[in-house]
Amino acid sequence: MANVGFIGLGNMGGPMAANLVKGGHKVQVFDLSEAALSAAKEAGCSIVSSATEAATHVDFIVTMLPADKHVKSVYLADDGLITVLSKDTLAIDCSTISAETARFVGAALKEKGIDFIDAPVSGGVGGAKACTLTFICGGEAGAVARARDVLQAMGKNIFHAGEMGAGQVAKICNNMLLSVLMVGTSEALQLGIAHGLDPKVLSQIMAASSGSNWTLDVYNPCPGVMDNVPSSNGYQGGFLVDLMSKDLGLAQQAALASGAATPMGALTHNLYRSWSQLGHGREDFSSIFNYVKPISK
Amino acid sequence: MANVGFIGLGNMGGPMAANLVKGGHKVQVFDLSEAALSAAKEAGCSIVSSATEAATHVDFIVTMLPADKHVKSVYLADDGLITVLSKDTLAIDCSTISAETARFVGAALKEKGIDFIDAPVSGGVGGAKACTLTFICGGEAGAVARARDVLQAMGKNIFHAGEMGAGQVAKICNNMLLSVLMVGTSEALQLGIAHGLDPKVLSQIMAASSGSNWTLDVYNPCPGVMDNVPSSNGYQGGFLVDLMSKDLGLAQQAALASGAATPMGALTHNLYRSWSQLGHGREDFSSIFNYVKPISK
Amino acid sequence: MANVGFIGLGNMGGPMAANLVKGGHKVQVFDLSEAALSAAKEAGCSIVSSATEAATHVDFIVTMLPADKHVKSVYLADDGLITVLSKDTLAIDCSTISAETARFVGAALKEKGIDFIDAPVSGGVGGAKACTLTFICGGEAGAVARARDVLQAMGKNIFHAGEMGAGQVAKICNNMLLSVLMVGTSEALQLGIAHGLDPKVLSQIMAASSGSNWTLDVYNPCPGVMDNVPSSNGYQGGFLVDLMSKDLGLAQQAALASGAATPMGALTHNLYRSWSQLGHGREDFSSIFNYVKPISK
Amino acid sequence: MANVGFIGLGNMGGPMAANLVKGGHKVQVFDLSEAALSAAKEAGCSIVSSATEAATHVDFIVTMLPADKHVKSVYLADDGLITVLSKDTLAIDCSTISAETARFVGAALKEKGIDFIDAPVSGGVGGAKACTLTFICGGEAGAVARARDVLQAMGKNIFHAGEMGAGQVAKICNNMLLSVLMVGTSEALQLGIAHGLDPKVLSQIMAASSGSNWTLDVYNPCPGVMDNVPSSNGYQGGFLVDLMSKDLGLAQQAALASGAATPMGALTHNLYRSWSQLGHGREDFSSIFNYVKPISK
Repeated sequence: MANVGFIGLGNMGGPMAANLVKGGHKVQVFDLSEAALSAAKEAGCSIVSSATEAATHVDFIVTMLPADKHVKSVYLADDGLITVLSKDTLAIDCSTISAETARFVGAALKEKGIDFIDAPVSGGVGGAKACTLTFICGGEAGAVARARDVLQAMGKNIFHAGEMGAGQVAKICNNMLLSVLMVGTSEALQLGIAHGLDPKVLSQIMAASSGSNWTLDVYNPCPGVMDNVPSSNGYQGGFLVDLMSKDLGLAQQAALASGAATPMGALTHNLYRSWSQLGHGREDFSSIFNYVKPISK
Repeated sequence: MANVGFIGLGNMGGPMAANLVKGGHKVQVFDLSEAALSAAKEAGCSIVSSATEAATHVDFIVTMLPADKHVKSVYLADDGLITVLSKDTLAIDCSTISAETARFVGAALKEKGIDFIDAPVSGGVGGAKACTLTFICGGEAGAVARARDVLQAMGKNIFHAGEMGAGQVAKICNNMLLSVLMVGTSEALQLGIAHGLDPKVLSQIMAASSGSNWTLDVYNPCPGVMDNVPSSNGYQGGFLVDLMSKDLGLAQQAALASGAATPMGALTHNLYRSWSQLGHGREDFSSIFNYVKPISK
Repeated sequence: MANVGFIGLGNMGGPMAANLVKGGHKVQVFDLSEAALSAAKEAGCSIVSSATEAATHVDFIVTMLPADKHVKSVYLADDGLITVLSKDTLAIDCSTISAETARFVGAALKEKGIDFIDAPVSGGVGGAKACTLTFICGGEAGAVARARDVLQAMGKNIFHAGEMGAGQVAKICNNMLLSVLMVGTSEALQLGIAHGLDPKVLSQIMAASSGSNWTLDVYNPCPGVMDNVPSSNGYQGGFLVDLMSKDLGLAQQAALASGAATPMGALTHNLYRSWSQLGHGREDFSSIFNYVKPISK
Repeated sequence: MANVGFIGLGNMGGPMAANLVKGGHKVQVFDLSEAALSAAKEAGCSIVSSATEAATHVDFIVTMLPADKHVKSVYLADDGLITVLSKDTLAIDCSTISAETARFVGAALKEKGIDFIDAPVSGGVGGAKACTLTFICGGEAGAVARARDVLQAMGKNIFHAGEMGAGQVAKICNNMLLSVLMVGTSEALQLGIAHGLDPKVLSQIMAASSGSNWTLDVYNPCPGVMDNVPSSNGYQGGFLVDLMSKDLGLAQQAALASGAATPMGALTHNLYRSWSQLGHGREDFSSIFNYVKPISK
């Protein structure tokens, strides 16, 4: 079993660190929130007093942070991890950030002989707790192989997408597609409802036909079609509109950088931005279902 | 076993009639094309010399026609089926047309005491030949139940979407969603490719994540990712851009009629229209993959 | 001076009839609203008790009605104008309806030897009161010429767009374009504001450059940039979101009928539909400015 | 009259430098292209052998370069202008680049006490030759005032948009809006044509109504409606699709940075990207008219 440092104990990071402990690993954690730290302590983690301390004397350092700037500073600031990490420690960043930043941080560590992989996750808070996350990794095959046991303790599927940064690219490609599935499914259901169809029946028909997709089949946006999904719980919990909006921004950034045409991805980005701006940012992203509601006549 | 009349022996109708014979039914067919008729004869159908003759002395009359106007005239013209159909014959229209026309024709027959269901299909030419079509039915429960054996001989799944016309509504909802899945999947794959990812690996990752959908999983638009799909065969065969464009027009017509908002469906409709107008109308609809290709730098 | 019958005394029709009187014409009016009738009486119109009576013994009958179905029934119902109109009376329909309905009504009258032109207006309630409306006419050149004096009494510009129905086509082309100008202008201004620019300065710069357009130059959607426009009056008055939404529906109907590709027109249609559905239907259409507001960070 | 250094003698820069000479200024120029240099010599400029030399002993240094990276390196490279510019020289960058880069370069110069303004132009090659360019300036009021005489020698209108970078922001806001006007106008004209209207008549009607905008009124995209515009010259000359595509990329970058919602701007960006990718990058941007052509039936 390994010694693991963990930085960033939010809604995702907290349960992930706890699952590492359950998996038999020795975990030392750091976060700015006292509450998060004491919760982690209860879960069996040992508390340390700084990010650098968390990264000392460990086989792996796992970071789960909100955005590019946090990852940059935690690793590369004058008092950043780069000043303390040993060549024997593998750095695993599970944050969802731009591929550019992932490559930039990874290259800086590489120069010091420190291995780094980007390993953003898919599966949300539910997956983090249930230990069913998917890890999408970018980096050298050897480093990804080395990380496998640790990642396995926090999730189910582990993919190697390619070079450093490829994990981030694959993650935002997936989430851009996810947003398209969600809006498209919402439109199809609303169109059917507007013509008097029962959304349960219509969902069943399309799920058995070429309309089948993850949002229709397991995360239906129409209230009452499925139990235990946010749409049947007032669109509470799940994956927030604001977070989807952030990921779609990363996708558009990647599209701009590469010259890729993404007419649909650009539209969903703008729909989710407007939906957030109209006051729905803290709802699950399936609430976009209400955005494509027909005009009441 | 039943006596079935069949009108419209195109790429879809031909194999469907042949499967009815295989299913042990007695089938009399009519079409304007000599070639289609002789092919049907070889398949074991008996040839008759007019639409009305095909609809005489049968338990079921099945129609598989290109568009609204053909269905209207075949059933309701002065020399249309309505003039010869017996109350004991169930009329099954498998064409993809507007719900309005389906209701209009059905109501006219109803007035004469003749039962009618709309039963558009999903699954394409491949499904028609392989007898794996999905039938999406609209009409009275009794009539749909009565049609079951006959439909079973031509396909796999049979759904009852609701009232008369509901089959057409569900079909276009599904195909509108399908177009969204296809364009969204194409964008996600092109974005990944533009950033150096292997489309096979990216497809595998998204298919195991929340990006999973029919077009990604079984009908991948990127050449070389899957065998036996149109994208790996020069986008030949499959479901033509022009047919998708027609269905998306029906979807927009339904959206206008109901006040439903379909920002994504409206965009895919316009993308497929432009793609057709640019000379790709006879390609499989997955060729839209080439439409969202990045600008070569 | 001419004898004119006028049917439909709404926000537009009322002032138009009043201006006919000011222009020296003898005007007999009918409407279902008592209030509208007494207002017209004060303006100098004579009141009659039915639509058919309004159309009797007149040189011109002008109709200004909400939608297709009203125009159809007022002209073609069993007790419609068609039963009383004399060959010497020119029928002028100023309603904004589909070109199909205009042609249908016009053709029915033509059969009876009655001349008809479609003459939808541009300029809104303000233009109706100020007598500065633009009339966009479809029909035979002779009939349009004959209508000129009467139309001149209600507006400023009179255009002959082409055959019967062409007035309606030109009107919805213009309004589809107008919606695109409005949303595009709103986006450009919001983008500038988000980067710290003064909307007045930015408006002045773009109005003097290639961004110049009607909505930016004379109907600015940003509050405070111009006086006497709806945006500086809480988006009250002007051209309602719901009416724009209706015209955009007519435009999409025309696009579907003709196979025209309108990616932008389809998008504005959906944006205005959603904006209405979100509770802004009774605001001026420039309120879409608030719809493209940046996410407050 | 002033001593002016000029760097970047492309389709825009060449005529601009020539106009400075016509305006009585003493102009020393540098460019990597021999052809450009000899053309400038004929126009009365004196040739120097490096960028730094061009920036020495001058009251003003004007730069007109393709993109961000060129501006960054010409000013800030180890052998960049920053190493030679005197505090008495005002740096005027007329390139169209991101506001971020403009601010970055301006701030670096400022640290050395050198004044800098961003002054991107609107008006295209035609405007550069005819000396009718519009300059949209960002920077301190004093610096902009100081630049006025020099800019006046190259154009007609000079605007002060705001702080440093504001010129770039205003420019891309204008060009994003311009792209929306162009696509919207093209759709409206194609829709009218599809319904049998004469594009000249329809253009005249909309130009006199609320559809009036720069692209309709003075740069009509429909061949034959106007003389002396690219659409009547096989879409040759004018403002290239690839350049519009570049500016729309800058606009989307600015939208991402600020959280502004630009559904229409994002769509035109993708339409122009696809149009370029389909082989029309070297045509005038009004060729998008052919992209929204109806499907030939």
